[in-house]
Amino acid sequence: MTEKELTLDSVYKASYVLRDVVRKTDVLYAPKLAPGLELYLKTENLQVTGSFKVRGACYKMSQLSAEEKAKGVIACSAGNHAQGVALAAQKNGIRAVICLPNGAPISKVEATRSYGAEICLVDGVYDDAYQKALELQNEFGYTFIHPFDDADVIAGQGTIALELIEQVPDLDAVLVPIGGGGLISGIAFTLKSLNPKVKVYGVQASGAPSMLNSIHDSHIEALDSVFTIADGIAVKQPGSLTYELCSRYVDEIVTVTDDEISAAILALMERHKLVTEGAGAVAVAAAMFGKVDLAGKKAVCLLSGGNIDVTILSRVIARGLLMSGRSCQLLIELVDKPGQLMQVSEIIAREGGNVTAVFHEHTCEGADVNGCYLRLTLETRNFDHIKAIKDALCGAGFKLLEREP
Amino acid sequence: MTEKELTLDSVYKASYVLRDVVRKTDVLYAPKLAPGLELYLKTENLQVTGSFKVRGACYKMSQLSAEEKAKGVIACSAGNHAQGVALAAQKNGIRAVICLPNGAPISKVEATRSYGAEICLVDGVYDDAYQKALELQNEFGYTFIHPFDDADVIAGQGTIALELIEQVPDLDAVLVPIGGGGLISGIAFTLKSLNPKVKVYGVQASGAPSMLNSIHDSHIEALDSVFTIADGIAVKQPGSLTYELCSRYVDEIVTVTDDEISAAILALMERHKLVTEGAGAVAVAAAMFGKVDLAGKKAVCLLSGGNIDVTILSRVIARGLLMSGRSCQLLIELVDKPGQLMQVSEIIAREGGNVTAVFHEHTCEGADVNGCYLRLTLETRNFDHIKAIKDALCGAGFKLLEREP
Repeated sequence: MTEKELTLDSVYKASYVLRDVVRKTDVLYAPKLAPGLELYLKTENLQVTGSFKVRGACYKMSQLSAEEKAKGVIACSAGNHAQGVALAAQKNGIRAVICLPNGAPISKVEATRSYGAEICLVDGVYDDAYQKALELQNEFGYTFIHPFDDADVIAGQGTIALELIEQVPDLDAVLVPIGGGGLISGIAFTLKSLNPKVKVYGVQASGAPSMLNSIHDSHIEALDSVFTIADGIAVKQPGSLTYELCSRYVDEIVTVTDDEISAAILALMERHKLVTEGAGAVAVAAAMFGKVDLAGKKAVCLLSGGNIDVTILSRVIARGLLMSGRSCQLLIELVDKPGQLMQVSEIIAREGGNVTAVFHEHTCEGADVNGCYLRLTLETRNFDHIKAIKDALCGAGFKLLEREP
Repeated sequence: MTEKELTLDSVYKASYVLRDVVRKTDVLYAPKLAPGLELYLKTENLQVTGSFKVRGACYKMSQLSAEEKAKGVIACSAGNHAQGVALAAQKNGIRAVICLPNGAPISKVEATRSYGAEICLVDGVYDDAYQKALELQNEFGYTFIHPFDDADVIAGQGTIALELIEQVPDLDAVLVPIGGGGLISGIAFTLKSLNPKVKVYGVQASGAPSMLNSIHDSHIEALDSVFTIADGIAVKQPGSLTYELCSRYVDEIVTVTDDEISAAILALMERHKLVTEGAGAVAVAAAMFGKVDLAGKKAVCLLSGGNIDVTILSRVIARGLLMSGRSCQLLIELVDKPGQLMQVSEIIAREGGNVTAVFHEHTCEGADVNGCYLRLTLETRNFDHIKAIKDALCGAGFKLLEREP
């Protein structure tokens, strides 16, 4: 943590320093995500390294002394901060060591290594990797690059606000994800300093509401545990600097559930062809599910990052389709006599459902000795369509179960 | 089909007409898609309606007479052209009727309707819908908007080249998908007219090489059938105007397979957070798999569209993971005695594989009466990792099968 103060000067200076390293990411108009709202998307998921983190890391490194630069930097992260620090160090010609817990996903380790960072895998969990990073810092004199609680890092993230002011001059509101609070601190400070009328809303995952709780109770609190698909903002405790800045500059903080986040990820993929990670989609989730009153406002949702594991993405797609009535699972109790499967299939086909998976077993424990269960997965149009299919099956005498008996 | 001639003037005029309707899509630097190459992505998948088609449709409509505008337009498409025509008509205040075959995906029908077009669902396949569109055209005097074989439509697509010249001034080459040929005709004509040194490469799906075959044989040929996941470029026969323009201005046409397209879709999602449809990814597939010699060239891959069904996307992700060694399926013949499953699990865990699905049946037809088969799906790091797991299983005496007996 630094004792430097955050100033508008430093944000402008960061903007100049970053000009050759970061992308000025596009702002896309998104009228269909939340009908009736005038929404825009700031696409930091398309930033180099796949997230905004490179901004803060790069400006922080530019401000190190020649001696500090010669010694190198260290960070602890298995995610976007690791890649941001690695690329920023590469661009500045600085040695970077990144400590990660041993179980970190191979893809993230490789991505970090590909930017030229030295990887230090540490047995244990994040906290063990963090301790190791502190040890190495003491031993070799590396500068520790904090992921959020640092005035220079925050100034780097604040450059997004300068771009927004140029890209959407008559902006009324922004919705920004909050984990540790570095991103929103930079954006809120910059926007409010230039135009206090702009509303700044923070969005947290309902499974990790550390900043919300802390501001509510007027002092920094630590959560015992966090649980959310938005791993990029699963932070147990806000920073001291970010807590102060959020208390002062953020208008309101809301939360979104994992199901709402999944629906937002899916909507961004389908309607805007953008891949976002859980943390990257929370602002859109808040707008889609009416967590903030945006009526009549020109609002920007900040898509903070896109580094989502594709296998998780497949699961999110599946969950999002279920959530929006575009797929459903049926569990049907059949009597064990010929023609039952045919009759069910015929009803579903007539109603326009598309069967994508079938599980049919004659002998299930717990079932009547003459009975069996048929589990079907269908592609459907919407919840009305699902109801029509269920009604048709019940009307023909089939028994639908809510869950396994 | 029109008898108008394509001119550079009309492309510039289209650029002016389109300024308030279409997005000037970003160009993103993509150094990691094909190591050693200097690749850029022109992101028409982020265009309004999710594809470039709105450009040609909108310019075409702007050129209609007042009388033609008053009567309205008609088109036949279940895909990107339908949405492009619908939005262009809405922006121009023109009535649009879109004929679609009855089995067209609900999502595409709804997207087209959401832009205010009238939908005419026709029993049968595409050709039936096309015949219906011609009938309606004759009956009501609508103007038929051809998806590619029209000088104004081509001029509209050519506006992409004007943007590219500004966005990547020292461009050496472009790679462009070819279906009917409208997109590449506009781009090749414009680029070659302004800078004949720029190389223009066309990319077709290997299951739909209609333009390639026609140019090879020096006359327009129709394919009997087409088969590819890139449905947006699954066109049986080039247009007459597009055939002439491609013959004259395109340097070379190459093809890519469905597996190569899947790998490109996955790479664009993972590394660049961009969703592309099959047709939208063929240019990147050609670059990734070395179909064109791009050494030392600054090359732009045109991402033509992003309208892919999310359920197909899930399948593409699964296929892409298999193709890149990041998942694998094993079929193991077991002797039916206790402890076998445990032993296999233990070996895979030790080698660092992550089991995601298990199918285990004691009695399989065709198997030895004491034998059974275990089918596993694993998450793996790469092909070397898969080999290590297989070697460990074989070393412990397990029999791996290539396919079901």
